[in-house]
Amino acid sequence: MKFTVERAILLKALAHVQSVVERRNTIPILANVLIAVKDGALKLTATDMEIAVVEEVPGVQVTREGRTTAPAATLYEIVRKLPEGATVELDHAGGDAALKLRAGRFNTDLSVLPVEDFPSMTEGKLPHGFALPAGQLRDLVDRTRFAISTEETRYYLNGIYLHAAETDGTKVLRAVATDGHRLARVEEPLPDGADRMPGVIIPRKTVNELRKLAEETQDEIAIRLSDTKIRFDIGTVQLTSKLIDGTFPEYERVIPRGNDKILRVAKKEFAEAVARVAAISSERSRPVKLSIDRNHLLLSASSAEQGQAQEELDGEVVRYEHSPLEIGFQARYLNDITDQIDAEVEFRFADGSAPTVVTDSAKPEALYVLMPMRV
Amino acid sequence: MKFTVERAILLKALAHVQSVVERRNTIPILANVLIAVKDGALKLTATDMEIAVVEEVPGVQVTREGRTTAPAATLYEIVRKLPEGATVELDHAGGDAALKLRAGRFNTDLSVLPVEDFPSMTEGKLPHGFALPAGQLRDLVDRTRFAISTEETRYYLNGIYLHAAETDGTKVLRAVATDGHRLARVEEPLPDGADRMPGVIIPRKTVNELRKLAEETQDEIAIRLSDTKIRFDIGTVQLTSKLIDGTFPEYERVIPRGNDKILRVAKKEFAEAVARVAAISSERSRPVKLSIDRNHLLLSASSAEQGQAQEELDGEVVRYEHSPLEIGFQARYLNDITDQIDAEVEFRFADGSAPTVVTDSAKPEALYVLMPMRV
Repeated sequence: MKFTVERAILLKALAHVQSVVERRNTIPILANVLIAVKDGALKLTATDMEIAVVEEVPGVQVTREGRTTAPAATLYEIVRKLPEGATVELDHAGGDAALKLRAGRFNTDLSVLPVEDFPSMTEGKLPHGFALPAGQLRDLVDRTRFAISTEETRYYLNGIYLHAAETDGTKVLRAVATDGHRLARVEEPLPDGADRMPGVIIPRKTVNELRKLAEETQDEIAIRLSDTKIRFDIGTVQLTSKLIDGTFPEYERVIPRGNDKILRVAKKEFAEAVARVAAISSERSRPVKLSIDRNHLLLSASSAEQGQAQEELDGEVVRYEHSPLEIGFQARYLNDITDQIDAEVEFRFADGSAPTVVTDSAKPEALYVLMPMRV
Repeated sequence: MKFTVERAILLKALAHVQSVVERRNTIPILANVLIAVKDGALKLTATDMEIAVVEEVPGVQVTREGRTTAPAATLYEIVRKLPEGATVELDHAGGDAALKLRAGRFNTDLSVLPVEDFPSMTEGKLPHGFALPAGQLRDLVDRTRFAISTEETRYYLNGIYLHAAETDGTKVLRAVATDGHRLARVEEPLPDGADRMPGVIIPRKTVNELRKLAEETQDEIAIRLSDTKIRFDIGTVQLTSKLIDGTFPEYERVIPRGNDKILRVAKKEFAEAVARVAAISSERSRPVKLSIDRNHLLLSASSAEQGQAQEELDGEVVRYEHSPLEIGFQARYLNDITDQIDAEVEFRFADGSAPTVVTDSAKPEALYVLMPMRV
């Protein structure tokens, strides 16, 4: 195998694939990137056995085809440190021979491992397929991933549940995540081809890699999946991932239907007031209390050591027409949700101890459920 | 005590003083900032018993004088989260009463601790005094602090040794730091009033706080000191610190005088080549080998697992007229020094195993000594 490629192009591709490589690896081959040149094209692959990222690299001048594997992090670090505009030559004589990288008067011999040992996880049938605009996929991820559980024992909550559903007679593609304290449910119009897809749970690491890759494009992202695997085609990058083998809870039961006490409050003023009153305590889980009255909201928090803080919001930014209510929430959970809301937050309460529904009053396609804390 | 002040002014002052407060404190009063209003002026003080930072805050509207102490980190966090342009009112009725902070419709009651418990470490005579332009002080710090030892058992190396000395018959103010592997010695013209100062060792934390404060000014910084304490007046901020009670080694003995093999190499090309060849290994302490020949330099590094890397630099950027030489240095140590050099690095070698002198060939006032590693 022998080819040359511009540093910037190789660097970008290596950045994508090496991101999936775990820094501490007990299996040496998983620290390597598979470098393959065939039919005049370069393909880079990295995997952690759960996720595989494959990237086709354009603009490569091929002298000789072939394949090998070399340390991903080291190769990335070296290419990163080459001068801008450099042309990089990669040369592998085959077998155990070192992979030679040359750029200007710099050269390195990188240890290789056999291509045969590199695990493949990209085969297998993926019967369901559809496409989503990158912006819609980013929305589905951004508005749900903060609620993914980190509790390993509840492994079926360690990802985003993606499935086809119906809202008021309209078919939708829905993403749901919950950690038991809060739930996020976001939907987009159901794309063609998705109506028979199985509900799948996409693991957190896959979600995060996907989000990074989806940042760079405005195009459609093609998605194919089976019961056990999902694949995203993002430009020249292909991300394949195992799915979480578990049953996502029947989350619809958790979403209260009858909450009728509605509070609407300007997002900016509310979010900043929450952060300010919460600053009285360094404990992350301390509640902020909302004392709500006709067009009036008092936020308060206290700490045994530091003191107490409160802020009033009134009719200029608050709309509430129901009976007075007191309820407490974790400040961080409130801010996680307001981060996803543009202009106005809408709360729907039942009472001071029941799950509360939160939405962006201009965007009903995203819905959040928040468990109160005793205050 | 009661006064109002613009948020931005209070925030800047709190940022300065709270920086010295240790996050984990077993002595509660040390987590607090002393807030004192007297003669129409506000003064904030924070201390960790080793360092005290006192700041006079301008532009305060005083209603009532007085003093109290309140949690520094919490107060800083709250003021940081107040809206830009807000006017902050602080109100303390005296004694155990909470400190009330109001801004718009936000208010907080902060727990206080008695002023009498707040340790004072700013008294005591400081017989020696001089002034340095902020730029010179920044230079003294920047070019030496990377070499400060982190070994706690060699506590007398855990700071910068500042003292009056003579170089070629000229009186200078010298800063020296060493960790036993490398030494940095930088000098500036001796300012008036410094010729009888004792040699003092300024602790690392003080150095770092000083450097942050010195960033914001172009003015002269007044320095006063005794055998045990040093004080810096930086604009409206006063930083007082205990000194390290120990004897700095006789570092002049470590600086080789007879090294006559001179290598001059362009800084940018050399520094980047060091970083590139060192990227072959993830071990931070792995050496880079310099193989030097007439107007030719080969840098190389290797790793048992990853392979090896090398880069050649030649007559365009390298000048060397002596017998061939091989010598190894820790890559990080080389880059720490080149970070302080502008255009051309000058090495003075004795042989491949002896301490090497490094300078900026345009700025002889900074000198570095580097111990080689076996390669």
